[in-house]
Amino acid sequence: MAEAAQTLDGWYSLHDFRLMDWTSWKCLSSDERQVAIHEFQQFLSKLNKTEEAKEGSHSFYSIVGQKADFMLMILRPTMEELNELENEFNKLTIAEYTIPSYSYVSVVELGNYMPSDEDPYQNEYVRSRLYPILPKTNHICFYPMDKRRQGNENWYMLPMEERQSLMRSHGMIGRGYAGKVKQIITGSVGFDDYEWGVTLYADDVLQFKKLIYEMRFDEVSAKYGEFGSFFVGNILKEDQLSKFLYVK
Amino acid sequence: MAEAAQTLDGWYSLHDFRLMDWTSWKCLSSDERQVAIHEFQQFLSKLNKTEEAKEGSHSFYSIVGQKADFMLMILRPTMEELNELENEFNKLTIAEYTIPSYSYVSVVELGNYMPSDEDPYQNEYVRSRLYPILPKTNHICFYPMDKRRQGNENWYMLPMEERQSLMRSHGMIGRGYAGKVKQIITGSVGFDDYEWGVTLYADDVLQFKKLIYEMRFDEVSAKYGEFGSFFVGNILKEDQLSKFLYVK
Amino acid sequence: MAEAAQTLDGWYSLHDFRLMDWTSWKCLSSDERQVAIHEFQQFLSKLNKTEEAKEGSHSFYSIVGQKADFMLMILRPTMEELNELENEFNKLTIAEYTIPSYSYVSVVELGNYMPSDEDPYQNEYVRSRLYPILPKTNHICFYPMDKRRQGNENWYMLPMEERQSLMRSHGMIGRGYAGKVKQIITGSVGFDDYEWGVTLYADDVLQFKKLIYEMRFDEVSAKYGEFGSFFVGNILKEDQLSKFLYVK
Amino acid sequence: MAEAAQTLDGWYSLHDFRLMDWTSWKCLSSDERQVAIHEFQQFLSKLNKTEEAKEGSHSFYSIVGQKADFMLMILRPTMEELNELENEFNKLTIAEYTIPSYSYVSVVELGNYMPSDEDPYQNEYVRSRLYPILPKTNHICFYPMDKRRQGNENWYMLPMEERQSLMRSHGMIGRGYAGKVKQIITGSVGFDDYEWGVTLYADDVLQFKKLIYEMRFDEVSAKYGEFGSFFVGNILKEDQLSKFLYVK
Amino acid sequence: MAEAAQTLDGWYSLHDFRLMDWTSWKCLSSDERQVAIHEFQQFLSKLNKTEEAKEGSHSFYSIVGQKADFMLMILRPTMEELNELENEFNKLTIAEYTIPSYSYVSVVELGNYMPSDEDPYQNEYVRSRLYPILPKTNHICFYPMDKRRQGNENWYMLPMEERQSLMRSHGMIGRGYAGKVKQIITGSVGFDDYEWGVTLYADDVLQFKKLIYEMRFDEVSAKYGEFGSFFVGNILKEDQLSKFLYVK
Repeated sequence: MAEAAQTLDGWYSLHDFRLMDWTSWKCLSSDERQVAIHEFQQFLSKLNKTEEAKEGSHSFYSIVGQKADFMLMILRPTMEELNELENEFNKLTIAEYTIPSYSYVSVVELGNYMPSDEDPYQNEYVRSRLYPILPKTNHICFYPMDKRRQGNENWYMLPMEERQSLMRSHGMIGRGYAGKVKQIITGSVGFDDYEWGVTLYADDVLQFKKLIYEMRFDEVSAKYGEFGSFFVGNILKEDQLSKFLYVK
Repeated sequence: MAEAAQTLDGWYSLHDFRLMDWTSWKCLSSDERQVAIHEFQQFLSKLNKTEEAKEGSHSFYSIVGQKADFMLMILRPTMEELNELENEFNKLTIAEYTIPSYSYVSVVELGNYMPSDEDPYQNEYVRSRLYPILPKTNHICFYPMDKRRQGNENWYMLPMEERQSLMRSHGMIGRGYAGKVKQIITGSVGFDDYEWGVTLYADDVLQFKKLIYEMRFDEVSAKYGEFGSFFVGNILKEDQLSKFLYVK
Repeated sequence: MAEAAQTLDGWYSLHDFRLMDWTSWKCLSSDERQVAIHEFQQFLSKLNKTEEAKEGSHSFYSIVGQKADFMLMILRPTMEELNELENEFNKLTIAEYTIPSYSYVSVVELGNYMPSDEDPYQNEYVRSRLYPILPKTNHICFYPMDKRRQGNENWYMLPMEERQSLMRSHGMIGRGYAGKVKQIITGSVGFDDYEWGVTLYADDVLQFKKLIYEMRFDEVSAKYGEFGSFFVGNILKEDQLSKFLYVK
Repeated sequence: MAEAAQTLDGWYSLHDFRLMDWTSWKCLSSDERQVAIHEFQQFLSKLNKTEEAKEGSHSFYSIVGQKADFMLMILRPTMEELNELENEFNKLTIAEYTIPSYSYVSVVELGNYMPSDEDPYQNEYVRSRLYPILPKTNHICFYPMDKRRQGNENWYMLPMEERQSLMRSHGMIGRGYAGKVKQIITGSVGFDDYEWGVTLYADDVLQFKKLIYEMRFDEVSAKYGEFGSFFVGNILKEDQLSKFLYVK
Repeated sequence: MAEAAQTLDGWYSLHDFRLMDWTSWKCLSSDERQVAIHEFQQFLSKLNKTEEAKEGSHSFYSIVGQKADFMLMILRPTMEELNELENEFNKLTIAEYTIPSYSYVSVVELGNYMPSDEDPYQNEYVRSRLYPILPKTNHICFYPMDKRRQGNENWYMLPMEERQSLMRSHGMIGRGYAGKVKQIITGSVGFDDYEWGVTLYADDVLQFKKLIYEMRFDEVSAKYGEFGSFFVGNILKEDQLSKFLYVK
């Protein structure tokens, strides 16, 4: 049996993807829509307050293509809080005009491939990454992934040293994108259908493609990466919400 | 032909996952909703009485993410009783406001990898595990799984001794989580699409991830485990049901 | 090219799985439901008469879990008769309150792995198995399956003698369940998505699991079996139909 | 690189599978249904005229099981004509009471594995097969298929001679069914999700099963065949349409 | 680690496939439909103006078969503009009568397998291919694809020279179709579920089949190509839109 990798785990995470049911939304009167938008904005304001208090964080982006119209990703200290916010959103008026299209349940995770003597949960740098305030870049990219377990391509049968060395070289590619792409890795073993969720942030959307494509030639991805659906989107700032939801 | 593993089989099991149709639910008047909630509570009370009489057991949890809003898992001595309770639930008013999203039919199973002289069905410890009162921990995790049968990775072609030895080492990992995670294994060969259902209970939700991730490096999972969807949730106690179902 | 196995083919078969749309069903008045149930009962009576005349047979079972609420399996001498009965059912009032969830088209098949001089279609024993009156046991189990064709695990590339020998040992397991489980094999090459449908009948539902699990360790299943969805259910006798369909 | 097989291509083909929405259909008055049936019959008459003029052909069959209630397969000289007829059907009243369940876009194709000096498109026999008047047998069978490209089982990496020799032996099986089964092969590379569609015609439905099962033991199918869904049905003659669509 | 291929990236691309909901569309009055068609035409006119200004381009085709009724493919300089146009379309009246059936998000990509000294983004020829005015041929063909990463068939583990040589020979086939088929390759790593989208244009629809079939025998496709769904269609010119949308 290969030695299991140690992980550090931070805030719990819910990615909630929604399609707008524009046809029903148009059936409302302009006033009814205003009330629904206002209620939605109040919900988002509450999330902002939690973020300002550094007791959680969230990302709110529109999504390009038919997979979703927007995505709300929420980080919170407990699974119960995630569930409460999910239910609170579901009970908003705006939710009646959305169609759930994908979601992902996970927890912020740091791979602990390097040995350490101190308690990482007390380390300020580690804490800032386990309990992150999510970036507000122009673009977001999300995809879930597994490490392959098939025949001679079985990540989980590799010795720890080989996994460490492969991950180190993989990490080097990521470092080449420092300042261009920021990534949040969330672990989902036992929580959702893939083993990890990858959420990337960038101001230049093309950097997502460059980074992931470069990594695909790296052995970790080339031999061991199994990917789910990819979602890409643009930031939905507070002052853009009304325009996004405006219909004649 | 490899010798088949012997199993002990206890209560039959139905996991029933449901989404709430919040939009329709809101269309009811507050009074109508109260009547529906009351009827649902009476149904749950009946389940509680059966559990108190130790003639069955059940778990009732909310589920995080879009796969389901809640899950009712029921254990009963016969397949007929499961079916009757399923139909009874389906005829409740609340069921009109739910959308079935996944279910699993199985039977509580104990692997009998160790030889035994006495009749296991008369053993008190064995009986307590075949006819278990399900834990009421804060969290639940469910997933179905198969043992792989592909090329050189064919569980069912391994000699009994090798399977026993692999399962023993697998069980050792589980034992490391004693007191943290309790697992109920249900067999579903002939009853549903995977070979087993795994239901885990824990007060600390992170222990699900730690346990399953550690096991993934063990040969039984790494080489032979094929997993279905994962569901994770929070306990829905009787006094929380009204709040869960409350809408303005 | 491997020599093709010879088969004997009997009555054509349609497995028709349906979910009840309980919400719509409840919208009917009690009288309207009675009329619909009566019409359904008359349809079932007609099937019974055909069965009494030994011009066909059928099974009617409730199904456990969300895959279906009931299943009607019909055997008839021609594909046209199957189609007519399917359409007749679809035009019943009760059908408006059902949602088709799965179906399977096949023909009763006997593997003819043993050489024979006489015309098997004149043999009384063979005829009783090609044109069977289906058992009325407490439980039913259905699943479709393929023989694998992949790399070194290619059933269709094995020499006839090896296939015969493997099937003989496979059959031995089945014989161990004589009196406990009765199986109807239907062939579906050219008729539906898998190569065979397997329909099992037993009074003790656990015997399905024991039989299929034991077979899984046999080389025919372990190396060559590819399985579709599994359905399990309880007999729905005439006098239980009203109760099954009763709603407040 | 292996030498590509040459093909001859004839009429374009659309297989259009539909479920009846019997519940909505019943909501119409008997008169409204008559008008819709009459309009549908006129559409079919138009198709018949084109067929009589040998400017196209079509098949109209009911389908057994839940995959579809009927299938209309249309052959025409251009993709534009197919699209126009598809849209014309979609705008008929009857189409409002159907649910599209599967379709296949392809072109009648003859494998040209044998070298030839003359222009095949001028050969009368070849022309009769590229622009065929479809048989009106009692039964139809349709399935799409690919040639496998995986590891050592890669059809497209085999030398031309080997492919020719394999196809020749494959064709020999087909010839054994001359007079019993007639097949139309349509190519769909670039047009739909599989590489070929296979449409079989027979008066005895069992011959589909016998032919395809026998072929499965042939190396071309056993090692290289990947199959999609199978559909089987009964001819729907003009004078049967009213009965098929009759509801109380 | 294999050296990553360099790419040049141009306009962002959205392929948006829609089914018509003919039943609802017919429910509108003739006048209401006219208003909706006019509004749609104005939207298309706006796209035409952008194309005339060479600030973007688009293709508008009807699609054959049940996968879609029409496809609008839009190229724009930013992901934000794509998203805005997508939302603008979704808010049109016509959109209420369409059902989204597939979409693809990508960016025009040129493989840069040949070394170069000059800045390719300043090269006029390169620019004309990165920011192309899409052809208005009679037919279109679209499919997404991956390069295989499995066992010994792992594109991303091949040395750069081998990939270059394989792609060169692959390109030779394409060149044989010069003047018959024009292809636009869009990269979608990080943007959508496959790695590339391939959009082909031809006046003779059969050339799609010939090109793709010939390529399938080439090692790049035969060993390394994994394909998604194929869509084929006919051009929908402005003056054909009214006819396409005309219903009685």
